[in-house]
Amino acid sequence: MKQFALIGAGRIGKVHAIAINAVANARIKTVCDVHQPSASALAGQYGADVADIDSVFTDDEIDAVLIASATDTHTPLLKRCAEAGKPVFCEKPLDLSLATAREAAAAINASGIVCGMGFNRRFDPQFSRLRKRVADGDIGALETLIIISRDPAPPPIDYINVSGGLFRDMMIHDFDIARWVLDEPIETVYATGSCLVDDAIGKAGDVDTASVTLRTASGKIALISNSRRAVYGYDQRIEAFGSNGMLQAMNNTETNLLHASANGVVSEPPLHFFLERYEDAYRIELEDFISALQNGTKPLADHNDGVASLQLAEAANASLQSGAAVKVNSY
Amino acid sequence: MKQFALIGAGRIGKVHAIAINAVANARIKTVCDVHQPSASALAGQYGADVADIDSVFTDDEIDAVLIASATDTHTPLLKRCAEAGKPVFCEKPLDLSLATAREAAAAINASGIVCGMGFNRRFDPQFSRLRKRVADGDIGALETLIIISRDPAPPPIDYINVSGGLFRDMMIHDFDIARWVLDEPIETVYATGSCLVDDAIGKAGDVDTASVTLRTASGKIALISNSRRAVYGYDQRIEAFGSNGMLQAMNNTETNLLHASANGVVSEPPLHFFLERYEDAYRIELEDFISALQNGTKPLADHNDGVASLQLAEAANASLQSGAAVKVNSY
Amino acid sequence: MKQFALIGAGRIGKVHAIAINAVANARIKTVCDVHQPSASALAGQYGADVADIDSVFTDDEIDAVLIASATDTHTPLLKRCAEAGKPVFCEKPLDLSLATAREAAAAINASGIVCGMGFNRRFDPQFSRLRKRVADGDIGALETLIIISRDPAPPPIDYINVSGGLFRDMMIHDFDIARWVLDEPIETVYATGSCLVDDAIGKAGDVDTASVTLRTASGKIALISNSRRAVYGYDQRIEAFGSNGMLQAMNNTETNLLHASANGVVSEPPLHFFLERYEDAYRIELEDFISALQNGTKPLADHNDGVASLQLAEAANASLQSGAAVKVNSY
Amino acid sequence: MKQFALIGAGRIGKVHAIAINAVANARIKTVCDVHQPSASALAGQYGADVADIDSVFTDDEIDAVLIASATDTHTPLLKRCAEAGKPVFCEKPLDLSLATAREAAAAINASGIVCGMGFNRRFDPQFSRLRKRVADGDIGALETLIIISRDPAPPPIDYINVSGGLFRDMMIHDFDIARWVLDEPIETVYATGSCLVDDAIGKAGDVDTASVTLRTASGKIALISNSRRAVYGYDQRIEAFGSNGMLQAMNNTETNLLHASANGVVSEPPLHFFLERYEDAYRIELEDFISALQNGTKPLADHNDGVASLQLAEAANASLQSGAAVKVNSY
Repeated sequence: MKQFALIGAGRIGKVHAIAINAVANARIKTVCDVHQPSASALAGQYGADVADIDSVFTDDEIDAVLIASATDTHTPLLKRCAEAGKPVFCEKPLDLSLATAREAAAAINASGIVCGMGFNRRFDPQFSRLRKRVADGDIGALETLIIISRDPAPPPIDYINVSGGLFRDMMIHDFDIARWVLDEPIETVYATGSCLVDDAIGKAGDVDTASVTLRTASGKIALISNSRRAVYGYDQRIEAFGSNGMLQAMNNTETNLLHASANGVVSEPPLHFFLERYEDAYRIELEDFISALQNGTKPLADHNDGVASLQLAEAANASLQSGAAVKVNSY
Repeated sequence: MKQFALIGAGRIGKVHAIAINAVANARIKTVCDVHQPSASALAGQYGADVADIDSVFTDDEIDAVLIASATDTHTPLLKRCAEAGKPVFCEKPLDLSLATAREAAAAINASGIVCGMGFNRRFDPQFSRLRKRVADGDIGALETLIIISRDPAPPPIDYINVSGGLFRDMMIHDFDIARWVLDEPIETVYATGSCLVDDAIGKAGDVDTASVTLRTASGKIALISNSRRAVYGYDQRIEAFGSNGMLQAMNNTETNLLHASANGVVSEPPLHFFLERYEDAYRIELEDFISALQNGTKPLADHNDGVASLQLAEAANASLQSGAAVKVNSY
Repeated sequence: MKQFALIGAGRIGKVHAIAINAVANARIKTVCDVHQPSASALAGQYGADVADIDSVFTDDEIDAVLIASATDTHTPLLKRCAEAGKPVFCEKPLDLSLATAREAAAAINASGIVCGMGFNRRFDPQFSRLRKRVADGDIGALETLIIISRDPAPPPIDYINVSGGLFRDMMIHDFDIARWVLDEPIETVYATGSCLVDDAIGKAGDVDTASVTLRTASGKIALISNSRRAVYGYDQRIEAFGSNGMLQAMNNTETNLLHASANGVVSEPPLHFFLERYEDAYRIELEDFISALQNGTKPLADHNDGVASLQLAEAANASLQSGAAVKVNSY
Repeated sequence: MKQFALIGAGRIGKVHAIAINAVANARIKTVCDVHQPSASALAGQYGADVADIDSVFTDDEIDAVLIASATDTHTPLLKRCAEAGKPVFCEKPLDLSLATAREAAAAINASGIVCGMGFNRRFDPQFSRLRKRVADGDIGALETLIIISRDPAPPPIDYINVSGGLFRDMMIHDFDIARWVLDEPIETVYATGSCLVDDAIGKAGDVDTASVTLRTASGKIALISNSRRAVYGYDQRIEAFGSNGMLQAMNNTETNLLHASANGVVSEPPLHFFLERYEDAYRIELEDFISALQNGTKPLADHNDGVASLQLAEAANASLQSGAAVKVNSY
């Protein structure tokens, strides 16, 4: 039984609480949150105690820390985990600054702790099967990758203001998936973006509609298309095209009901948002992390993946400014 | 917390054990099986004790009995539950004999215990949504119902021999769904069947390929098509056609991956069999039963539904012999 | 160049006129219709002349007769073709009376003329490919065949009154397809039907919603489901299930556009009706007939198929009356 | 009846010959080709005569010229049409040089002749309906457009050598579709490309795998992804995403047959190549051109569209060299 300290009792903290609870050999021992009532409420739900953060790093009964607090706390907490020798699972993004993220990664590497990153999409059964089949050669050599990722609705402007921008906050998932499926060094990043969904996002200095083109060492091309708003739901698709065929991960729906009427044949829209779409993935990523703890293996996504995706996000921001492709050296 | 005695530790007993365990406010207290080692193994897995059946009916800590033993034990056990005033959830079919099933139902009605029947398909999210939308008038007045149900492979011949035949064992689910969706008295039953899959099934006096036509009081028509073997997996579809449109419940698949190659575009086959296809349904039917216990409501499927479906199965057998439609009076 | 006399300038006559015109080596020489203005209008459109029927059989420049007039004229005209030695292509049904149809067939057989029957669905590219793949063994041995055929809207009651009833007028197509795909003697026919769409159809003594179960010598089962009205369009599907898989012919649509909105993902309804759905088939059946004329081969559907389908329709009517399956000996 | 001089009796010339022949009020009067036997063969097939090119421009019976000869002949022939006052329909691309194409366009504008460009995809029923629905506001304001276009197999290297490269030869169609659907000025063009399909293409200085990002004045983004080879067939899709939904034009198949086997459920691959996929479009573009001749209207695609698409292709080539987005001013 692995006992977790869960840091952060907000929306994403609750998602991880459900996931920890759903895993057979894991439980939440302690919940920490700067907002005490939130910590207490969540702790109460899972028979956990509430503690201040300092005690987490000295509590021998805590086997691992799960960081689900605000992004600017990630690096300080990761460093403390490294110092204390506590294995840690950290939500994305690792940090909003590449330089700072690299410091955190260096500390983790030096300490040798296991560190998992919350790139939930790698654990989605559909996407992981697509990646396995690409790696198995089912489409021959991969040549073009197209990732479409659209949220149902933009987050509140307060969130946008601290999010680090679309590339660090939202497209970071797609950068990670692209890296993972491409599986070779990425050499150039070109980004373009617009504010088409909500003027307030533009006033905040961000874009809400964006696309990025990645090109790898061997010439593979990845296209990523993002929007902060899709009225038909959470649109999450991947298309991998290769020398011997194509694999497409289509949207998931709640049921496979079809309704034929005078207006046509209607199937269901995609699952509403990430809680529904990646419900299984949140559990599976915990299982992978616990398996890494138990077997001394590497988690499927770790802090180095966090750094590498952030590097692509920073390159995208630079390209958005310059209008030219930016050279990177990211594997 | 509702404590269950689980009678029957075989394949379907294990399915229900998983389901009870997955429900928040339920646990297995006791496991009974004529094969003691099976009972012990399953009990050990869920921290339950093993007991002989007699003790179940006198144990005040047992809130409900779940009958997952051989079909010929259903009626005797149901009667004992009725005598003891123990709520009971019973696997389908209620019995292989309509007369005996009616005796069991009379005993249950007399005692007033809550009794749920394991017609899992009513609890499938897709089928229950189809039924709700039909009831809500989304297709106007229902006119024709087509139910296609094919197993991936036939059961062992030993099972066939005690199964009561395709209509009582397999199509019983489709009779129940037809009754539930049609929602009005059925007046005639016509059946035809063949042995096309396995000669041994024919030698056992059974059919492995069959179809039934039901006609209701108002003239609605339901067609049911069964096969004991579909090489592409467990085929479970319903089509409801009405005055204002059509609803189709299509097969579920493990993922929505598409693979385009020189051979065409391949999507996944249906989920393999009932354990995968109705995994959620087994849990939801338990939740419904527990809700009935707690709130004094009627379970979604009960012993009367067990009797009514068996009546249709017997009528189908009679029609298969006579070649003529058989009149029934089944709501 | 094969020159046709087209008898009948109504709706279905016009369909055949378009088809003849679209075939490279065919033209309409003469149009006949009891309603002279209709004949003139259609003739004018294709540079044909108008003549009375008697002259057709003595005109040496007429290579073949196409009968698209009222059903009760089919047998007399077929007999005259047989006497005159004129090849003939006749719309379905051959006749409303099986006895009379057999007389026509005997006359045709005696004379040795080529006779094609307008069972357009055999010539539909999708259905003919399904049939070929079944015959090629792509699904192993065929076991169950399900044919769903629904018109968008019922015909006028005046048409119903002279149509011979749903089985002879509408399901005749499905009987033919079933015979063609099953490809072995059919032994029993069970029918049920209701009047659910339009009371006037019931008052005319007909049904508008019906299903038929056919069983062959080897035990194969075919289910046919008809409705005179589907609000979503002309529903034309076939499902062939066998020992090694399943083939499904799905509905055709005008385009493959998908529209995702807050209401779901909408694809187009089936093509509206037979003119659109079988546009190619009407041309291909003419090409097949002309090829039979030129090469001395048998048309894909002939008068014997017309008789055999009518036999099934009469059996269905008898079964509808008796409530029992009717024995037939139809190949 | 409009009489055409068809210049070019090669592969694409034959496609247009079929199209002219299929249009009710058009015929081929004259065929010209530098390879006399090709001209004679094609002329013979359609009852046309063979002539040298000079005579075309003085023959009063020729209503229009259709240019289907090698690309380097397009501009000289267009200028001669302009001088002679002959309406002309010209295959894409207008020219390989933007400067030269502009000269041709200037000549056409000065003379006032009707000029149609062979951007066949605008006439595809599916794509034209998508464009109409976007224009009608069915998806609200268009924000992102994704065009995927993959040929089944690369052309011979001899063709590649004179093709002008992927952007001018192949992606020119997608540039045109993008302009047509975006319907506002395009401001930047970013291109990347690789040689992944065939080394010989790389040695010829061309790419076989490429993507382009277009950004419009208002910030709309279009992504185009091309490959010279898709083993599953001719992949032609468009996805238009907007503020109120999404429209997707999916691939067309020969039939809608589904085959379920132990390997999954197989649907047909896309139609093989442009002859099959755009068969209707080749006819419809001719009808549009003839309608323009008759009614004095503008063809749906004209020489100005030819110039504008070529401008985007040149910008793509420049971007491919520089690695930066190229500014254009193209409506």
